[in-house]
Amino acid sequence: MMDSGSNLNSYIELVVPLIEEEMRHIVNNLHDDLAQSGFDVGQPDIFVTMLRYHLGFANADGTPVQVYSGKRLRPVLVLLCCEACGGTAGNALPAAAAIELMHNFSLIHDDIEDRDELRRGRATLWKLWGDAQAINSGDAMFTLAHLAMQAALSRGARAAHVLQALKVFDEAAMALTIGQHLDLSFEKRSDVSATEYMAMIKGKTGALTQAACAIGAILAGAPAARISALAGFGAWLGIAFQLQDDILGIWGDPAVTGKQDSDLSHHKKTLPVLYAAERNQQLRELYFRRTIPGADDLSLLRQLIEENEGREYTESAAHEAYVKSLQALGAAGIEGPAADVLYALAESLLGRSA
Amino acid sequence: MMDSGSNLNSYIELVVPLIEEEMRHIVNNLHDDLAQSGFDVGQPDIFVTMLRYHLGFANADGTPVQVYSGKRLRPVLVLLCCEACGGTAGNALPAAAAIELMHNFSLIHDDIEDRDELRRGRATLWKLWGDAQAINSGDAMFTLAHLAMQAALSRGARAAHVLQALKVFDEAAMALTIGQHLDLSFEKRSDVSATEYMAMIKGKTGALTQAACAIGAILAGAPAARISALAGFGAWLGIAFQLQDDILGIWGDPAVTGKQDSDLSHHKKTLPVLYAAERNQQLRELYFRRTIPGADDLSLLRQLIEENEGREYTESAAHEAYVKSLQALGAAGIEGPAADVLYALAESLLGRSA
Repeated sequence: MMDSGSNLNSYIELVVPLIEEEMRHIVNNLHDDLAQSGFDVGQPDIFVTMLRYHLGFANADGTPVQVYSGKRLRPVLVLLCCEACGGTAGNALPAAAAIELMHNFSLIHDDIEDRDELRRGRATLWKLWGDAQAINSGDAMFTLAHLAMQAALSRGARAAHVLQALKVFDEAAMALTIGQHLDLSFEKRSDVSATEYMAMIKGKTGALTQAACAIGAILAGAPAARISALAGFGAWLGIAFQLQDDILGIWGDPAVTGKQDSDLSHHKKTLPVLYAAERNQQLRELYFRRTIPGADDLSLLRQLIEENEGREYTESAAHEAYVKSLQALGAAGIEGPAADVLYALAESLLGRSA
Repeated sequence: MMDSGSNLNSYIELVVPLIEEEMRHIVNNLHDDLAQSGFDVGQPDIFVTMLRYHLGFANADGTPVQVYSGKRLRPVLVLLCCEACGGTAGNALPAAAAIELMHNFSLIHDDIEDRDELRRGRATLWKLWGDAQAINSGDAMFTLAHLAMQAALSRGARAAHVLQALKVFDEAAMALTIGQHLDLSFEKRSDVSATEYMAMIKGKTGALTQAACAIGAILAGAPAARISALAGFGAWLGIAFQLQDDILGIWGDPAVTGKQDSDLSHHKKTLPVLYAAERNQQLRELYFRRTIPGADDLSLLRQLIEENEGREYTESAAHEAYVKSLQALGAAGIEGPAADVLYALAESLLGRSA
């Protein structure tokens, strides 16, 4: 028997291409599907190219390409939770694609809202096509996510389960927008507390991993208590993941994380800084002014954050979230190969360096 | 027996407050509903105020108010089509609210994309809270629309019907974003044809009235042919409505339409101008340059449009769309009081002056 770490890798290698194929299928069939349903409004080339470009399926001129576009963690969680609850991963593929499309919708709009010019080394949609078209493209991606989820019906899922999944899906979207609302409001403030930060990432990161796990279980026809336990697992896993990201954003190796700049260069308000800033006035003054810090400033900032326990506190909060996610996973009472891979996945996320 | 026109007015006076109450209910219960579903991410005051402000339920400081917020034509169509197919309007109220929320989502994003500072005499969301928060608020409104539609399940609609309604709902949203994509792309071009314009409004205006009628029929459990006929009625009615709007935007009485500026002041590319500009070079040169026209220019523009049959052509296209909508309504083979009100509604829209 292989160890669970290599099982995890084989699983990911197996399902990620299937998830991407599902996503590609729904984007490419957009026009035909609409026309068949009596909404024949044509299909402007650039409209579809923008969606395919953002997903890493096309260059800006529409030529096909395959660009690495993230870990696809969320859709993998859908499939694993479905299988761990006795369902068939194949039937949950539309839902997995839907969760990843929803995540990508939020990235398109976040990039506009945060004025980010690059995403995974490529120009963002608004940078290439302007704000107006990019906002509209994000709306199309959000809509596509819903259509993808509804397609679960044609793969043998029961109508009641698909409706239940859609409800969780939109509740997560609402929590996501509340999280994003908080995040945007934080940018204008210099008094954000660690507690407020935790509420924000609960919405902005936890809600979607929570929905991913719950939806996998729902489509497998799992009982309510198991759905709820897996939802808790996903929520805490997402939070642990985000706090790890916060740590890597300051102390990670750029060669490994792929991030050119430290989060500190952009005055990002992440937990290590916010916690330490509550305890140190010099850090508050340095961090909340709007000048771009030089290399010397960056190492001073890092030092002040560490001296004021920002790193320690965040590591311990990440660990606590991780423990809670494992407890919830335990409470789900699932066993078998898919459950083993879920445990391995949780483990790999906490130890990650990228 | 009253004539159908006064039946229409009584019907509207009866149902619009119910639709608004349904909308108010779903916005106000947002936080509790989310918390109950395990997405307890708090409810920032401004987040909800922005939604309530846009819908005309609150001032910018959150104090309650009741502002006139449009004809609510689309949700009225949902209820009428449901009743005309033998369904109960009360059961379709969540769907009616959903259609109106979707319409309002598109208004929030359109206002950002078009840089419109006013909507029905009040400052737009982006003008008050900035682009980033307004984009996010539009996303929340879109999500709320989906949650509203799903709530039809708790009012006795069958799961299969709600799923079918949701599919039409998102197909309409996709057609809407395709229409908006075209509209935005037209702004940068000086060679938009009348044919291209018709494709654009099919998506931007026709899709949502199409969905409104189809969804009403679906929730009543109507047979496929009747759903399809009512969808056609809604699509052509929406197109007729838009073409009427184009005419009123140039030749309407500002005291009646409530629009301060003529569409011509903003170089809006509507059918009367596009049709005439295809036939007249002076009009093309005057209209597609970027200077703001004075009063003399405006009357010259109006004259050139009329001389080149832009008004005549648009009036005839509006009439044709109207006839097609009535033919489709006839093909639906519905009878009774709700059907009578539907006919009266169609009639009132073509003859309108505001």
